[in-house]
Amino acid sequence: MSVLVVGTVGIDRVETPHGERSNLLGGSASFASLAASFHAPVSLVSVVGQDFPAHHRAVWEKRGINLTGLQVASGQTFRWHGVYEENMNNRRTISTELNVLADFQPVLPAGLKKLPFVMLGNLAPDLQHSVLDQMEKPRFVVADTMDLWIHTARPRLLELLGRIDLLILNDSEAKQLADEPNLLKASRWLRERGPKYVAIKKGEHGCFLTGSEGAFAAPAIPLEQVLDPTGAGDTFAGGLAGYLAGQKGVDLPTLAKGVIEGTVLASFTVEDFSLERLASLTEKELKQRRQELLKLINPNS
Amino acid sequence: MSVLVVGTVGIDRVETPHGERSNLLGGSASFASLAASFHAPVSLVSVVGQDFPAHHRAVWEKRGINLTGLQVASGQTFRWHGVYEENMNNRRTISTELNVLADFQPVLPAGLKKLPFVMLGNLAPDLQHSVLDQMEKPRFVVADTMDLWIHTARPRLLELLGRIDLLILNDSEAKQLADEPNLLKASRWLRERGPKYVAIKKGEHGCFLTGSEGAFAAPAIPLEQVLDPTGAGDTFAGGLAGYLAGQKGVDLPTLAKGVIEGTVLASFTVEDFSLERLASLTEKELKQRRQELLKLINPNS
Repeated sequence: MSVLVVGTVGIDRVETPHGERSNLLGGSASFASLAASFHAPVSLVSVVGQDFPAHHRAVWEKRGINLTGLQVASGQTFRWHGVYEENMNNRRTISTELNVLADFQPVLPAGLKKLPFVMLGNLAPDLQHSVLDQMEKPRFVVADTMDLWIHTARPRLLELLGRIDLLILNDSEAKQLADEPNLLKASRWLRERGPKYVAIKKGEHGCFLTGSEGAFAAPAIPLEQVLDPTGAGDTFAGGLAGYLAGQKGVDLPTLAKGVIEGTVLASFTVEDFSLERLASLTEKELKQRRQELLKLINPNS
Repeated sequence: MSVLVVGTVGIDRVETPHGERSNLLGGSASFASLAASFHAPVSLVSVVGQDFPAHHRAVWEKRGINLTGLQVASGQTFRWHGVYEENMNNRRTISTELNVLADFQPVLPAGLKKLPFVMLGNLAPDLQHSVLDQMEKPRFVVADTMDLWIHTARPRLLELLGRIDLLILNDSEAKQLADEPNLLKASRWLRERGPKYVAIKKGEHGCFLTGSEGAFAAPAIPLEQVLDPTGAGDTFAGGLAGYLAGQKGVDLPTLAKGVIEGTVLASFTVEDFSLERLASLTEKELKQRRQELLKLINPNS
């Protein structure tokens, strides 16, 4: 089944200890939609400016992503400039230019309103609400978020919890949002506010997923070199949502498999800048690394 | 088969956000030997002073641990006083009184020299060497260590690597000892210096084990409340070593099962002060939590 992916599209400038690159394709929807496309048909909903280059658009087109929901507004595309420190868990934002994102109002083409799976990529909660307002009874809604919205739009984010099935966020964000340092308690607090499942991203330490049926803990794939961590979380979320869209129903074992797929895809994203590794990824490479992860979890498999 | 466990025995004073307790049984060998005793016959090698109370000794006796290698020296038992902060990953040592540990020279009774499995608990590398000097061709040697020895006895610790089969240490220690922030590279560096396997403890994030055959990543068991983290690492190491001693041979899949057993036992240790939870632990509770961990790793199991 098809999945609708909404989020930001941006043009990034990224500095890491391994180099500096400009005019990169970035934004939560860019990574999430490309990741989801490995498992399900994807429709992208976002906004770009008139300056958005055709070669960036071609990255999605090459993977068959439906772009009827991608608005082209007058003005410049959203831009982000970030620097990663030697310990690449630490990132500083140098500048953010919202540009066309400032006035973005998602308007879903009629054909997208009936899609059964929705991935609300990292975006202002108001806009995430607006997409759900336009959808006709989606079967499963996944939402990603970030600390910015916890600090600036907490009430709207808490409201959103009542409308989604799976919340994805990182460990420090889960602790902040629930105001609770224990991840088990924080997960329960979040689930009590709506989502049946909560997936907590722990970066190099993997993912911790909980639901009423139990929990699942997956390691990340240990990598010798990370070139650019940008988009790893969006890739994880998109890969997970895409996998779910390809299944008959969603329960804890299905979600666990989805976490595996998200983890595998994210491990490729960080191996190069922007979407470069993901865009060239083959089914064979995907299968090979999935086997690697399954072996890491169970050396007898 | 039997396992010889060497390490410290101490009397601890521990302050945590959940309370303060004095005159607790502590020390690396105390935790490691009790944990190992759930899987194999154990002989303990350490030293206590004349003040060492009978009720502490009874904790080991109750689990059938052989104490012929426990020296009673004239003087006071080793004492440690530590404080855990609100975030219990942060611990401060208030005082350390070496007492009888200062002049400790392990002397193995003849019956212990032929034991096939050796667990060198956290202890000065010189003393770990001295135990190996007395052993007659052990089949498998496990060594635990800590940052103190990395800083004060690095050359002797590096020498020890050439004499052991499995090194256990935590993530920050692995990075320090190998002078390498990437855990995959640090593990390889350490294995190149001797041990066939390296198990890196990551606290609440579980354990990462590597060998030439591949790697295994296990999560920790998420707990709603940790009362006292003291001895968790020693319990893990002892449980793992004890499990190995009960198996026919040691390979990566066997080690993975040992990591599971160490993880399960450590999850009990932190639920109460000192060895209190471990001392009252039943086979049924152990089995139940093992199932819980296996479900966490594979919700389909």
